[in-house]
This record gives sequence, structure tokens and C-alpha cells, in this order.
Amino acid sequence: MRHSSRGEVDPFIVMDVMEAARRAEADGRHIIHMEVGQPGTGAPAPALQKLAHELDQPLGYTVGLGLPELRNRIARHVADWYDVDLDPDRVVVTSGASGAFLLAFSALFDNGARVGLGTPCYPSYRQILRAVGLTPVDIPTSLAQRFQSVPGDVADHDLSGLIVASPANPTGTMLSKAALGDLAEACAAYDAALISDEIYHGIDYDMPPVSALQVTDEVYVVNSFSKYFSMTGWRVGWMVVPQDHIRRVERLAQNMFICAPHAAQRLALHAMDCPDDLAANKAVYATNRTLMMDGLRAAGLDRFAPPDGAFYVYVDVSDFTDDARQFAADILAQAGVAVTPGLDFDARRGHHWFRFSYARSTADIVEGLDRLARFMEGRAR
Amino acid sequence: MRHSSRGEVDPFIVMDVMEAARRAEADGRHIIHMEVGQPGTGAPAPALQKLAHELDQPLGYTVGLGLPELRNRIARHVADWYDVDLDPDRVVVTSGASGAFLLAFSALFDNGARVGLGTPCYPSYRQILRAVGLTPVDIPTSLAQRFQSVPGDVADHDLSGLIVASPANPTGTMLSKAALGDLAEACAAYDAALISDEIYHGIDYDMPPVSALQVTDEVYVVNSFSKYFSMTGWRVGWMVVPQDHIRRVERLAQNMFICAPHAAQRLALHAMDCPDDLAANKAVYATNRTLMMDGLRAAGLDRFAPPDGAFYVYVDVSDFTDDARQFAADILAQAGVAVTPGLDFDARRGHHWFRFSYARSTADIVEGLDRLARFMEGRAR
Repeated sequence: MRHSSRGEVDPFIVMDVMEAARRAEADGRHIIHMEVGQPGTGAPAPALQKLAHELDQPLGYTVGLGLPELRNRIARHVADWYDVDLDPDRVVVTSGASGAFLLAFSALFDNGARVGLGTPCYPSYRQILRAVGLTPVDIPTSLAQRFQSVPGDVADHDLSGLIVASPANPTGTMLSKAALGDLAEACAAYDAALISDEIYHGIDYDMPPVSALQVTDEVYVVNSFSKYFSMTGWRVGWMVVPQDHIRRVERLAQNMFICAPHAAQRLALHAMDCPDDLAANKAVYATNRTLMMDGLRAAGLDRFAPPDGAFYVYVDVSDFTDDARQFAADILAQAGVAVTPGLDFDARRGHHWFRFSYARSTADIVEGLDRLARFMEGRAR
Repeated sequence: MRHSSRGEVDPFIVMDVMEAARRAEADGRHIIHMEVGQPGTGAPAPALQKLAHELDQPLGYTVGLGLPELRNRIARHVADWYDVDLDPDRVVVTSGASGAFLLAFSALFDNGARVGLGTPCYPSYRQILRAVGLTPVDIPTSLAQRFQSVPGDVADHDLSGLIVASPANPTGTMLSKAALGDLAEACAAYDAALISDEIYHGIDYDMPPVSALQVTDEVYVVNSFSKYFSMTGWRVGWMVVPQDHIRRVERLAQNMFICAPHAAQRLALHAMDCPDDLAANKAVYATNRTLMMDGLRAAGLDRFAPPDGAFYVYVDVSDFTDDARQFAADILAQAGVAVTPGLDFDARRGHHWFRFSYARSTADIVEGLDRLARFMEGRAR
């Protein structure tokens, strides 16, 4: 049967790592998971209890843009966190951040449009762009620029749009308010759409992240309930769009998704009022981050930008290998630690990089770092 | 800020009707809803009870293609209903039928590809195709052909793909096994992809619907837990794809959606084992259908194809109006019954048609038909 060329998506190498780890576990081995990019925790317990009591009412379709009370609550959240006065009409509840990107790309770009990605980056940006007939443009960034795009990229690469992420996956680095402002200005000057991925907001350490909403209204801001609110499997997120895009995005959302999952929308509303549970999760990430940075350095894996947020460290391992994929396989086989080679995030340079995730329990991080230290012992740089 | 031309989606006229009905209710009027295309019932109660007990485990991401036990259960369902031996590997759990269409279109078609739709049809086919950069091709069908596409359409319109629906929305008509077989053959001969929308299967009256899987393996079959399983707001459906498309669709699904909502997948698994609740829902639709056909005829609205399935009747009202939109507004204002003008389903001819839905309670249908009869009294043909 016929198929498209745009469906020719690169394999997710992290999936191969996860499958190899699963096989090792099936063989009775104990594996520490530093490859997984999702919280080990579920949704906040008090929120789940409230939802359990709402399951006896029919949870039919909501309106396309989402439950009005959730959109209001998100606008209040934006006011609380960023001191930005946001019209709730600009908030679109989406089927996860994934659904937000699909919506944004349809609303903003015509076939073949060039959309820039500072690499390394979340691989699905590239694949979704391709899947809907657009042209992803990889723009290499450097450790020196903390892996973030710079304003000159927009004109240099003739972009119709630019995706930025702060804190970023896989690096955890953030954009300052000035840097975000400069990027927004460069996009506006070139009539390129700015899309700001803020799904790791709330998981930050030394300073709070800046939202693109603090510097401009001319932006699509994507967020999610999966990370800080620990609701991965529920598939609900949100997007803030410019005032004059609301109707367009509403019509697209009605047709492409009908609505985001109703139960997940209700749970999200409840989860936003569980600050204690969320603070407890964040404290674990903070502890893990310190352990991770110290442990990696102790193991000789010290070439990384300290992460400002999220739960990843992106490490240059070029002193030890030219084949991160094989090196990861060796670490899994010999040390029982699963890590992600950088190839998913950066096809050109990822063979020299690893992403370590510290999203799981502190006990696992301690044990994993111990195993890594032993594995690295005596390896020449 | 810039925007795309492919995001220029037609308005959903049914949404205007729903909004007008809501305003009338806010003014204290009692409105009967014959415009709404979703069951009034929620998910089966025993399934919800099981889910409530599973909420204390973290419901993280599932694998991209869906919970293996759900994929197995769906394959068993296909065997039970259609006597087709289906490899569970071919089953993809999706974020509703909407998610299935997005996946299918990305897997099958390149930019600008022509995809045929027999009109009248579900309007979102057209809008989703446009939103992802493809070319919907409207192909008018007739009451005489029971509003279904015919094999000649494929070559006549130079199609890369054809979407069929049986039972169809808005007409409720079904394709016979022979007709489906001929369409599959015409598609294969022209290297066009066949997409079979089977979301109303299980809601049928005089004869069971035929699945495209009974006539070919070279098809994408889309189904949903929203209608027969009464799980609208949970956003979960499934798709069956050809064996050699599994890996491609898996990679797309991982990137475009990560996974379908986890809780909804669990609930779907439980709902499939609630035959009594589902039979009770279906009995209501069957009663409503008879009432509806009799009542419409009694009101003089007798130009329709008797629906084989789903919960709609599509009625030619050209004897009474050339402006279905205004006529619907009059019925809402004077009779307090909300109905959908045909324009969403057929832009060219829909001004002469209405869709009546009988998805809600029998008491509402009785009252609505009574009001309609009084409204129609004395109107000349």
C-alpha cells in the first residue's frame, strides 16, 4: 500500500535503549533508569481523590478550547508566576504539549515553511514538523552559548518560525529575559513566528524561568501538565496564543482534536491546587540534581553546562568515545545503567554526547552514580 | 503575527446552533437538543468503578501504540464481531478517531495529495486534511446512491486516497460488503489509500455493518470508543493498519502524540467487558430511531434515506426552504428545538438539508417531535 515520504520519521534511539533495558530486566538484572524523561511520581493524590468523586457524571466533550474554569485558572497561574495579566480567552487547553505543537504548526505555517530548531533539542519538534509537511531547519548551538538559539539565526536561515525551549531538553539550560526579548524582536522583524516551549517551568533551581509572555504578546507559548504537575499519561497541556489568533486556533482545535481529554482537564484543575505535593516532587529533583552533577564530575564526566531547570544533564563524552550509542550499550551491559546517547537530540554531533535524566528516585540516582563511577574507573581521557 | 492559509478552517455551523441554544436556555427557555452528535450517556458504570480503583497507581506514558492488553482485546473484538483473524500488532490505540485521522494522513500522503470525500460527510475530514497541507476533494453523492462513494470516483477525481464511512455521519447509511469490496479494488488499482471510518459500528439496526477488514488488509480502519462504548470525552480510539505500515505508524505516533491518554486506555479495556450496559444504550437508540422516522414523516419531513446505523437522520427540506440555516433558527426560536443545517456536511447543497440527531433520551425525542409537528403544521410544500 502507498505511503508518504513525510511519514519517514527517524527512529527514536532512546526507545532502543529502553527496549534493551527491558530485556536486561527480563533476564533478571537490576537496571537503573537514567534514560527516562518522565517523573516517577503520579498526579498529586488529593487531585486524584477529587477526580474519583467526579467519575459518576458523564464526561462528554468539552468545548474545543477547554473547560472555561481551567482556562481561567491557568490565566491566574500565569499572573501568579510571571506577574503577567493574561486574558483567559488566549488560553487553549490542548491534548498535551504534543497536541499544542500540532495545532500551532497548522495555525502558523504553510506547506514547506522553514522552522528553526537550535540543536540539540527535543527530537519530536523535527518529526512533527516533517509529519505535517513543513521543513525543520537544524541550527547547531554550542556549549558556550548554553545550547540556545541566537537572534541572528532567524534571518541567517530564512526562517518562517523558530522554536525555543527554556528550560531545554536535553540540556536543562534557560534563556534570560534579555535573550528571550532579543529573539522575539528578531522574529518580529523577520515576520517569523516565535514558539516558546515552557513545559519544564516550575522545575528550576537557582532562578525562576522567564516566560516569553513577559517579553511579548506575539508568541505561541506551549506548556504541559506532564512535568511540574506530574501528569504525564493524562495528555493535557495548554497553549497561549496572540489575541488575533484565538478564533483560528479554536476552529482548528475543534476539527483536529474536538477537545482535550475531559477527565484530564478536571484533574489538571485540581492539581493546580496541590502546592505541597508539587513542592515535594521538586525537592527530590533538586537533591538529585546536586548528586548528579557531583557524581558525574567524580566519574570524570565533567563536560556539561549545569542545568538551570528540567531534570537532565547533557554531557560531552567525546574524550571517551566516538560512538555514544555503543558506549551506552557498554554501560548498560557492564554497569546496569541505562542512559540516552545524544543522537536523538542532535543527529550531527550526538555521537559525542549523553543525556542523563534524574527524574526518578534519589536512591536510584545514588546507586546509578556509584555504578557509573566504577565503570569509568581507569578509563583514559 | 503571521498565520497560515491552511489554518483558514470553515466555521462549524453546528457550533453556532449550539451557542444559540445555550443562549435560549440562559434566557430560561427549555430546548430539545437534536443538534448534538454525542451520546447523552457516560462510560459504562462498572468500567468507571474499576478505573476509580486504579487511580492510585502512577498512570505515566504507555508505549506509543497503546497498552498491549488493550490491543489484544481489540483484536479479539474484531474476531468476535467480524470473524476476522487480526494480528494485534496491527492495532494502534489513538487519541480518539481525531488522532487516528491525523496519524493516517501523515503516514499516507505527501503535501497537496488529493483525498476524496463523498459529500455530505463529517466536516472535520476536510478541515484536518487542509490543516496538514493536503487537498480535500468533495465528491457529491446522491440520495439514490444512499450518499456513499462509488468505485469510479477514484480515477475520475485522480485521488491519492478515499475516505468512506459506514454507518455514515450525517446520513446513517451503510456500505454493503460488495460495495466496500468494489471500493477497495478501485483504490488498489489506482494506488489510492482507502481509509474506512467505522466509528458508528455497534450502533446499527436492521443488519450488522461490514468492516473493511472483511474485504481487504490494504486499508486503514478507524474506530473510536466514543459512540458505541459511550466514552466521548475520554478521547480514545483505535486504528488498524496494514502489516507493512506498523513501524511507520508507530514512529509517527510516538512523535506526534507520545501515547493516547493512559486512564482512557484502561477505561476502554474495562468498557469492552460491559455488554449489558452497552446493549441498554443501543436499545434506546433503536427506540428513538423508530420514533424519529415516524415523527419526521408525520411532520411532513419525509425525504430521507432510512438510517442503517449511527443516530442521525439526514433530511431534504428543500420543499420548505432554500436557507436551512434560517429555517433552523426559526425552529429554534419558535419551537425550541435545535437542529443542524446541512452546510457543515455539504457546503454546496447543505442549504437544502437538516441533520436530526436522536442520541439523547427518548423523552426528549418524543417532546422534540411533538414540537416539530406543531411547527410544521400548515406549512405548504
